[in-house]
Order: sequence, then C-alpha cells, then structure tokens
Amino acid sequence: MSNPLRDARDRRLNRIAGPGALVFFGITGDLARKKLMPAVYDLANRGLLPPNFAIVGFGRRDWTAQDFANQAREWILASARTPFNETVFAQLAAGMRFISGAFDDDGAYENLAETLDELAESRSTGRNHAFYLSIPPSWFEVVCQKLAEHKLAKDKNPGWERVVIEKPFGHDLESARELNEIVESVFPPDAVFRIDHYLGKETVQNLLALRFGNQMFEPLWNNKYVDHVQITMAEDIGIGGRASYYDGVGAARDVIQNHLLQLLALTAMEEPISFDADHLRSEKEKVLTAVQLPEDLGAASARGQYTSGWQGAEEVVGFLDEEGFNPKSKTETYAAVRLNINTRRWSGVPFYLRAGKRLGRRVTEIAVVFKKAPNLLFTDHEDDEFGQNAFVIRVQPDEGATIRFSSKVPGTQMEIRDVTMDFGYGNAFTESSPEAYERLILDVLLGEPPLFPRHEEVEQSWRILDPFEEYWASLPTQPEPYAPGSWGPESSDELMAKDGRSWRRP
Amino acid sequence: MSNPLRDARDRRLNRIAGPGALVFFGITGDLARKKLMPAVYDLANRGLLPPNFAIVGFGRRDWTAQDFANQAREWILASARTPFNETVFAQLAAGMRFISGAFDDDGAYENLAETLDELAESRSTGRNHAFYLSIPPSWFEVVCQKLAEHKLAKDKNPGWERVVIEKPFGHDLESARELNEIVESVFPPDAVFRIDHYLGKETVQNLLALRFGNQMFEPLWNNKYVDHVQITMAEDIGIGGRASYYDGVGAARDVIQNHLLQLLALTAMEEPISFDADHLRSEKEKVLTAVQLPEDLGAASARGQYTSGWQGAEEVVGFLDEEGFNPKSKTETYAAVRLNINTRRWSGVPFYLRAGKRLGRRVTEIAVVFKKAPNLLFTDHEDDEFGQNAFVIRVQPDEGATIRFSSKVPGTQMEIRDVTMDFGYGNAFTESSPEAYERLILDVLLGEPPLFPRHEEVEQSWRILDPFEEYWASLPTQPEPYAPGSWGPESSDELMAKDGRSWRRP
Repeated sequence: MSNPLRDARDRRLNRIAGPGALVFFGITGDLARKKLMPAVYDLANRGLLPPNFAIVGFGRRDWTAQDFANQAREWILASARTPFNETVFAQLAAGMRFISGAFDDDGAYENLAETLDELAESRSTGRNHAFYLSIPPSWFEVVCQKLAEHKLAKDKNPGWERVVIEKPFGHDLESARELNEIVESVFPPDAVFRIDHYLGKETVQNLLALRFGNQMFEPLWNNKYVDHVQITMAEDIGIGGRASYYDGVGAARDVIQNHLLQLLALTAMEEPISFDADHLRSEKEKVLTAVQLPEDLGAASARGQYTSGWQGAEEVVGFLDEEGFNPKSKTETYAAVRLNINTRRWSGVPFYLRAGKRLGRRVTEIAVVFKKAPNLLFTDHEDDEFGQNAFVIRVQPDEGATIRFSSKVPGTQMEIRDVTMDFGYGNAFTESSPEAYERLILDVLLGEPPLFPRHEEVEQSWRILDPFEEYWASLPTQPEPYAPGSWGPESSDELMAKDGRSWRRP
Repeated sequence: MSNPLRDARDRRLNRIAGPGALVFFGITGDLARKKLMPAVYDLANRGLLPPNFAIVGFGRRDWTAQDFANQAREWILASARTPFNETVFAQLAAGMRFISGAFDDDGAYENLAETLDELAESRSTGRNHAFYLSIPPSWFEVVCQKLAEHKLAKDKNPGWERVVIEKPFGHDLESARELNEIVESVFPPDAVFRIDHYLGKETVQNLLALRFGNQMFEPLWNNKYVDHVQITMAEDIGIGGRASYYDGVGAARDVIQNHLLQLLALTAMEEPISFDADHLRSEKEKVLTAVQLPEDLGAASARGQYTSGWQGAEEVVGFLDEEGFNPKSKTETYAAVRLNINTRRWSGVPFYLRAGKRLGRRVTEIAVVFKKAPNLLFTDHEDDEFGQNAFVIRVQPDEGATIRFSSKVPGTQMEIRDVTMDFGYGNAFTESSPEAYERLILDVLLGEPPLFPRHEEVEQSWRILDPFEEYWASLPTQPEPYAPGSWGPESSDELMAKDGRSWRRP
C-alpha cells in the first residue's frame, strides 16, 4: 500500500548522489574487495546512485575493465548486504573501468585522465571525481602529487574533486601534520574526506540522536550525575595477517587515536548548533582540545601483550610468536588510558579508554556510569555495585542501548537489586542498518563532510596520544603479558582499582 | 548450593510473624475466600508464619472448626499462589476455629472471647489478636462496639490488638470522618490498618525503589522536565455482580479516591527520611494536601456510562441494563479528573487520573510524560508525538517499566523515531511476586504500617474528590455514554485535547 505523503517525505529525506566517477586506488586490497565495492553496489541497489555512475579501479594487476567487473561481481556476491540484482549490477558494470599501473607510473595517470574524459562523455559524469586512496599512507604523497601533475586534483571545470583517505592519519602529531600538508597542498581542506568508519556506524550516529533528540538524558549528562565514562573496544582476534603493519603501531595508535577518541568526542561534546559539518566538527574539536593529560602518565595508563594459550576451544599463538613477527617487539596489543576533560560539564569525571586484541569477546561500547544514589532508604543490598546506574551504548555487535538501574526484588521486604532495561536496534526497526561504508561513501559523493574528522581533530588526537606513546617508548620493560580470552593485563585493572572503580565486564 | 553469608542475610531480611490469632469477620465473603485465606496459606507455606499460628473465622454459617478447615482447604487449593503442602496445611488447620453468629450477636462475641482464651493456651498466641473486618462498612460500628464491649478491642495483657478495614473508607469526607471516629474510639490510631491493596503490589512498592534507589530518575522528576503525568486504571469487565454495591458509588469513589490518589501520592511525594510509617505517610499526606482543585470542575473532569454492545467477540449488556440495576442511575462507570499539585516540584504539571470499566483492556499504569526536547537538530520526524519521552510504570498486568525515547532510524539520513526500552518484572527476577494481600497481612501481623494509609490521607483524598462528586451530582444530565471496548467517553478525550495533550493508548 502506497502512502503518497510518506513517499514524498522519503524522497525528500533520501539523499541520492548525482553523476560522477569514483576512482579507487588500491582496488585489489582487502578493504576495497570486502567493504568498498560491496558498499557501492548496495548504494546502487538501494537506488541512491545515478544510473550513469562510473567506477574506476586503479591497481597493479593487468586487468581489463571486463576483468575488473568480473572480479567486482565476485566481491559483491561474497560481501554485499543487499540481494544481488543482475540489472543493477549490469548498469554499474557498464560504468566500470580499470587503470593498470603502479601508483607512481605517469603513464597510468595519463590513462586515468583519458578514461575520466571518456567517462565524462559516455557516462555524463559532469567531471565529478572522487579519489579513494585505499593504499598505505606512504603512497599518499606520490598519488596526490601525480594527480596534481596530471591536472586531476584540480580538473577542468565543471565538476568537483574530492579525495578520501583512510587511517592511519600519521604515526604521531608531527607525521600527521606532514601528511596533511601533502594532501592539502593538492586538495583544498573541504575536499579532503578522512574516513573513520566508526563514525559511519548507526549506533555512533544514534549517540547524537539519543543525546540531543531526547529530554530525558541530557540533564543527567554532566559531572553532577556522572561518575565516570568507560569506552571499550575489545577484539577477540589476534593480529593475524596484520603482523607487518602492527609492529610499531599497537592498540593505542591503531584504534584509540581515531575510533575511541572520536567516540569520546561525541559522548562528551556540547550540543552543536546544527549537524552541519562546521558546527559538529567544531564541537568535537573543542572537547578534544579540552582533554587534559594526566600528570603521571604511568599511573594513568596500562599496556599489555597477549601470550599464547587457549581462547575458548582454540589454541592461539602469542603476539611475539606470530609468524614473521619481531619477537622482541614492544608494541602493545592492549592499551588503556585515563583522561580528564577540562570543561565545566566534565571537570572531575574521568574518561577511561581501553582497546585490546585477544580479549574475552568482541565488543565496542560506551558506558556512562552514574554516581551512586544517596541510598539512605535502602540499607540492605547485594554488593557495592548496587545503585550505580549506567547508560551503555553498544556500538557493536548487538547494536543498542542498555540502562542499568535498581529495582525492588519481589518479596515481602524492601530489598533492591540491579536490573537492566534494554533497547536493541535490530528489534526496534524493520529497516536494516546500512554498512558504515555505504553511509560514508554516499556522504563523499554528496559532498557532506559532518561524519569525517577534520584535520584539527586528528591533530588533537595525536596531541593526546603522543605523550603516552613517548612514555611507553621510554620504558625499558616489555608490555605486561596477558592471557588470550582474558580482559587484559593486571595493570589495567589496577588503573581502575586505584580510583576505586572497576572495568565493566561486557 | 548453600551460601552461609547469603542465608544469614536472608534470615535477617525475611521478616517472620510472631505468634498470634487472625480473626476474619466475613470469612465466607468473596475476598476472604479468593484472596485472604489463600494469602495466609502462602505466608505459612513460605515459612513466614509461626507454627502455632491461629485463624478464627466469624460468620453466619453454622460451621464447626472442621467445616471451616475443610472449606479453607478448597479455597486454598483453588486460589493459593504456592503449591499445596499437606503438612503446612495440617499445621494451619490445627489452629483454625469458627465462630457462628451475626455481627451483632453478643453470644457470638462471648464465644469469640472464650475461643481466644483457649487459643492463648493451646496455640500460645500471646493474646496477639488481629481483627480483619472483611464486611460492609455499615457493620464497622457494630463490630467495633461489640469488640469493645466484650473487652476484645483492648484485651488483657500481654499481647496486641489490631483492626484491619477494607475500603470504602466512607462515602465522602464527612462519612469518612464519622467512620474513623467510630473505629478510633475503640482502637488507637496506630492499631488501625486500612487496606488499599494497591499498596501491597510489587510494582507500586517498586515505584519507591525506582525513584529513590537510583541516581538517574530523580533529577528528572520535576516540573523542569515533566510535562504531565497520566494515571490510568482501566478494567475490561463491567460491574457484573457488584451492581447493588456500585449504584451511587461509581468509578471515582470506587478507585480514584483510594488506588489512584495513592499512586499519585507515591509518584509525586518528596523523598521521605525513611520508609518508616511516620515518615512515608507524612510525605504522602503532604503531597495530597498540596493537591489543588481546578476552578472549573466541569472543564477538568469527564464521566461516562458504558452502553451495551460488543467487546471483542462478546456481546455485553449496558450499565443501565445490568440485571437488577437502577435503570435511571447517574452513577459513572468512567471518570477522569485533572489535578494540580501546588508544590515547587510540581507547580504547572497537571496530573490526569482516569478509571473506567468496559474499556479496551485491563491495565493500570503511571505514565510520566516528559516535555518535548528542544529538537533544533532534528527537523524531519514522523508526527507530533515525536521526542516526548515517557517513563511508564506498569502496575498490572505485565508488571514492569518502559521508557519511550527517540532513536535514529537506520539509514543514510538523520531521521529519528520513538522507540521503547523495557523492563519486565517477570523476566528480571526468578522470585515470583507475592500477592498484595500476602505482603499486607504479614505487615499487619508484624505491626508495620507504612503501606497502610493513615486516616489523614483518606480525608485528604475525600477533600479532593468531594467537589467533583458534588459537581457531577448537580448536573441534570446522565453521564456520557461510551461503547464497551472503547477508551471512554469523548468528553474525556476533550479534557486532554483542551490542554493540547492526549491520553496514552496503553
């Protein structure tokens, strides 16, 4: 049954990309195969791409456009979220091109320029070009310069150029600044889209809806009622095939610098004037700028390396014994830090961030833990955790939110106990959640940057992380070992215990 | 597996009645058969009554103690909450006695006095006597006077005397005062236990736990955040066998005066210093005293009478056509009122109370509806209800709590929609809820009065209700008809609509 008003509203809300070409550098990499191409297909299948959309793959393989299309079909069949539709795919495939070459091969760029000219004719792209650099950051400079030399970074009019880069955005504050100078010497700041795919996740965006779309939560969201905040990103896998990348990076650079500090920013920021990019990103930047480093970096942090052992029924190899890995690496696979935020809203409320591999289970969550109620009326209760309300936003898996509160235990006495109230994203909506990359790629094509961190945010994140990294690097000791399937090293529990608190066991 | 610490704690928390005799006047009535005797058995079965406990039935039937025990067995088998246990019942039955006689029969009271003497010996009751008047209020005066004349109201020492009375506590303020004078001329105020069985319900007591055992809710519980409160008691049944009682009483006197105003008091009262009877009841009385009557009683109220028609698959007879009923009765089967509370916390927040028979479904709930959030950030939403958070405490059935709030709809735009988060009493606890009467009878035996309204509360309730009753009585018109299975008369919806609000459809 069609509802004309509803349909009109949907058309109004549904944002549909205009004509253009999306150029993927590193098209044969894991990310492009498993996430990016399937996300583009899903967007097309949902009717959010124009029929004449064009996709250009750039890679070292000796592929024709048809080879690329054949591969893309396989990747989409394996990983797309929506059902496969021949017609949709055929339309998409007709706009696929492949440029074979190294990232510093001038001939390939000439080829690319000709191909984009051709697509402007055959697919009416309007010379709108998005360059998606799904490549190691060491190549960013070369690719940007080649694009500039071949007049692709600032193309003939009409049309727009945008560049998309994936983390890591540098290795520390200095390298991040250098990287940015390179990219922004070629593309203007508002044409640079830095992907933090966590910001594309539904529950992360829902954090904004929860905080600012409701009357019930915001009054509690401050140091009058909140005791502390825990942000956790736990993985149950080890470093696996990423060994070569991971050495010298570690948990803090890999996910705290970007994902966890972005979650902190969204949790702690003031209400923006609007969700426009300028307003939203200014508030995030502001709260990151207000993050205060602890005086005693050792007492406010913990790090560890997983050992070999059993994770459930699986015998797993320790971090230092991973194949092809540096057996003396001091890189941490677990990191925890305590930060304070120097604002009137958050002064005195510590934010604890932790991330690790080979932990008890895979979970990302933000837990806002409230102060204990002055339970003058309830003298009999089960344990010390009693009465400490918590609002937990589960980012993944089982996206949703949980409130922990106290309730009377049935019976003829006034005994109270902690219970939970739950909201599951999957249960509440018939709409299935788009993948983060669908949202983010669509935003790139629409030129809507709110969900992409600005360079200033990246710099602030490194400002926060660098002192911890320097402190850790100065230590003569290895990171503390922890067993696979555990919740990290003892020092991490001590970090909380010193403050009279404890980590949630999610 | 036994846990000694836990066991000790349970013993400490489990309140067990001491020796005594419970005398039921009106033992053959519906309430005694279906609720009171089964509740006494359940208490015994749970080990909360002493083994030598005594029960005396008082009624017109020509029963022996054995007849009474045989009947009691049937009632318990039919209606007890816990499984039947021969040993427990045998122990209870050994303490059962029956006094045959009218409520004004001096011989019967002599008999009762002798029986209580005998029980003091045979069952070591310690001369602790609770008189439960499960009889029409017109008999209260006679029974109290007879108890006094026969020196049972103030018995020989040692031991205590308590009297339990069931609503209605009068018909209006004046009759309530008269009734109280009679009862309190015989029993001291702290020996009078007025039963409002709603206060024995788990979810009603849980309201106190939710409000005062948590940090998250109390900060929101005021006129800064709350728009209004709705308290609903909807029944799907008609007056049925209560026709003779109901004429001249009506929905307002039957349930608003007691249950709903008690729920209002618990929802709106300030935090008591403790749950001791004095502290708790003082706060309830205080907030009832602060209830302000509307200037225009007509505009702030609605009333109706259900008509004949179909309720679901059942054809039902209209109120005025009920068998043996006064066909010109102006008694309402639906009543709604709007009240204000003149305190700093609630000034400006209307409380809407409604109660009715033959409504859409059976439900009792308290809905705290919050003000709309200033949704400057969310311009696209589904309807006007959007963003109005609500905290709903479901008293019956499906005891629990629900929070309604706004969440982002999955998709590539920032659309938000109302969702709910739920807590079900039945799911959260393995302990099953005792019946309200178990809790209340135990409290009587323990001499713990917090859950029994004081006379001052009853008077305040009549002060609030009388003007509405007088206004309605002054109207020449019949109450507005409404169809069975509906949600009451149109005037009730208009009552809300005038204020720009609407009733929840629970």
